[in-house]
Amino acid sequence: MSSLGKRRKFSERFTNNVSTRAVTRSKRAFNFNAGPAALPLSVLERIREELLDYRGTGMSVIELSHRSPEFEAISSAAEQNLRQLLAIPDEYAVIFVQGGGSMQFSMVPMNLALPGKPVDVIHTGAWTAKAIGELKKGTPHNIAGSTEAEKFARVPRQEELKLSGEASYLYICTNNTIEGTQYRALPQSAAPLVADMSSDIASRPVDVGKFGLIFAGAQKNLGPSGVTVVIVRKDLAERADKNLPTVLQYRTHIKEKSLYHTPPTFAVYVLGLVTEWIAAEGGLVGIHKRNETKARLLYETIDGSGGYYRCPVDRASRSLMNVVFRLAGGDEAAEKEFAKGAAAANLVGTPGHRSVGGMRISLYNAVGLDAVEALVAFMREFQRARG
Amino acid sequence: MSSLGKRRKFSERFTNNVSTRAVTRSKRAFNFNAGPAALPLSVLERIREELLDYRGTGMSVIELSHRSPEFEAISSAAEQNLRQLLAIPDEYAVIFVQGGGSMQFSMVPMNLALPGKPVDVIHTGAWTAKAIGELKKGTPHNIAGSTEAEKFARVPRQEELKLSGEASYLYICTNNTIEGTQYRALPQSAAPLVADMSSDIASRPVDVGKFGLIFAGAQKNLGPSGVTVVIVRKDLAERADKNLPTVLQYRTHIKEKSLYHTPPTFAVYVLGLVTEWIAAEGGLVGIHKRNETKARLLYETIDGSGGYYRCPVDRASRSLMNVVFRLAGGDEAAEKEFAKGAAAANLVGTPGHRSVGGMRISLYNAVGLDAVEALVAFMREFQRARG
Repeated sequence: MSSLGKRRKFSERFTNNVSTRAVTRSKRAFNFNAGPAALPLSVLERIREELLDYRGTGMSVIELSHRSPEFEAISSAAEQNLRQLLAIPDEYAVIFVQGGGSMQFSMVPMNLALPGKPVDVIHTGAWTAKAIGELKKGTPHNIAGSTEAEKFARVPRQEELKLSGEASYLYICTNNTIEGTQYRALPQSAAPLVADMSSDIASRPVDVGKFGLIFAGAQKNLGPSGVTVVIVRKDLAERADKNLPTVLQYRTHIKEKSLYHTPPTFAVYVLGLVTEWIAAEGGLVGIHKRNETKARLLYETIDGSGGYYRCPVDRASRSLMNVVFRLAGGDEAAEKEFAKGAAAANLVGTPGHRSVGGMRISLYNAVGLDAVEALVAFMREFQRARG
Repeated sequence: MSSLGKRRKFSERFTNNVSTRAVTRSKRAFNFNAGPAALPLSVLERIREELLDYRGTGMSVIELSHRSPEFEAISSAAEQNLRQLLAIPDEYAVIFVQGGGSMQFSMVPMNLALPGKPVDVIHTGAWTAKAIGELKKGTPHNIAGSTEAEKFARVPRQEELKLSGEASYLYICTNNTIEGTQYRALPQSAAPLVADMSSDIASRPVDVGKFGLIFAGAQKNLGPSGVTVVIVRKDLAERADKNLPTVLQYRTHIKEKSLYHTPPTFAVYVLGLVTEWIAAEGGLVGIHKRNETKARLLYETIDGSGGYYRCPVDRASRSLMNVVFRLAGGDEAAEKEFAKGAAAANLVGTPGHRSVGGMRISLYNAVGLDAVEALVAFMREFQRARG
């Protein structure tokens, strides 16, 4: 039989089997989207349950005034949940803002860059490239480390860093969604550490005290899109020129407890529910264990495939959140077929970022082990059928 | 009977009656919140119905990738709905951004102010004051008109305006939520007209061709909070310095069809549903008629109360969206009791803005005539019991 014929036959057979099973077992997709991403089913059910009447108010949560005691309680609980989960010290503010990481790429230097002192940056891929792009518009900066020459297959080691004598801050991205890398140990610097933690916040324990500022869009590990968490040491927020747009000063949102202007109320509400769910799952220690188990199963499947699947990332830098791999020596046709077969098998979101190709499996907090089990079963079957 | 005794008795009696009726009739509150505000029940039911499985995807709408065909269709439909409702000409872009009006107070001058040319502003209350506050940080501007001396009880007339010879643009707020005023006719200027239309967009027909830029947070007439609509003449978006933060340039979002970065997907989705609902209600002509009927009933009740209720706004400037009034010569104790009794009678959100006191009734698109009928019945009963 020709290779093409074999492919077709496999695709049809597998698709039919799994589709049937999916329909009878559950209508929920196994969702490996890179963000917005899977949310806990129990959270979705809770939203649905109280959508028309938020806890006896006779209004939907999205109809509540942001100045109502009910919404103030929602916002305050979301903040407190984060404080407890991440053990955030009192000298840090926790605020909810809008605009995502893309806004933070500008807001961080606007607020934290000191006159005459460069910003140190460790360049680890597409997201630090975006942050650097904004720094290039007028903030002196120093690329203190980069693994671009190695196609970002790892994060730099401490001894490779060339830090400035007196930097305003050191900027990193803790987890690189597109390249599939993640820091195990944090880089050391005398300057405050500022982290884009959009894709691994609340996925593992973290020592907030080691950071000057952490920001993260909620849409991967904490909730839906539309809200950005900023955890900032209060003294650093005072660096900002008061002539900056009011809404772009961290101090504005600190002072007004994230209610300076109308917040994205739904996103804050869901973030509150998701953080409650994380706490119930054993907090960051429990969720980290889950995340390690999921990632291990997938990396072992890749590494045990005799080279059919290959992860290009150095073992010491492999992300628990985004597992990237190539198929059969980078055969793009095979990769397309994989994604197509996976989708037919109820496994959503497997293609890699369009800039790098291959496959990318996002294993954020709400992705269950059952989803990874279904995926590796598909991977084994796919390899067997084509092997 | 003492005045106090009479008050208590009234309060108890009315509360009991109406509460009972509310429970047996419906659990929905009559919601007069100033934003976030009431949404159509049919929209809320639709959200609830498809919350766990967005149209057969096996995912919630908030779990969809913003790069998925499903979400692209949602975003595109929301844009098209607005284009049809507002009859937006092709030379205008319609984009969805984050940060609300507060972000636009800075983003508009960043993008549209021309070197050496002032921004003309008509000052009509708290929201133009905020916009002026941001202009004061470095954008030359001219207060072309103001009714501050009259406590903003009306909007300025054309013949009162002192426009600059060559302004970058003329800035107005079409509806002033706190002061209860609204333009009937638009001011004329040779400069492009820029409007904060946050509180009356899509509440009445509008000739978009007369504007250079319109912005509006969704949370009053169009959906939940978290998304801001910007309608901008494409040539004006090209004024901006390319060195501005990428995310703060209108051209970025025009070029990327509001998908430059992760959009607030839930808010865009609901905006799409609400604009569908408006279309089904007869479009802007139909919704305007509804809004006029609602406002007329309330203003007539106020004006017909023999001075017990008093609206401080000039008739020619009275808002269809936010009806403000005082009680019994500005008796604050009476106003507090009114708000309390109203809340007990299932009428939510009647107190005026904390900066001005009194009462404020917001009558956005999704507030039904039944809500206004319930309110005026309460108003008559309240006056009778205390009269």
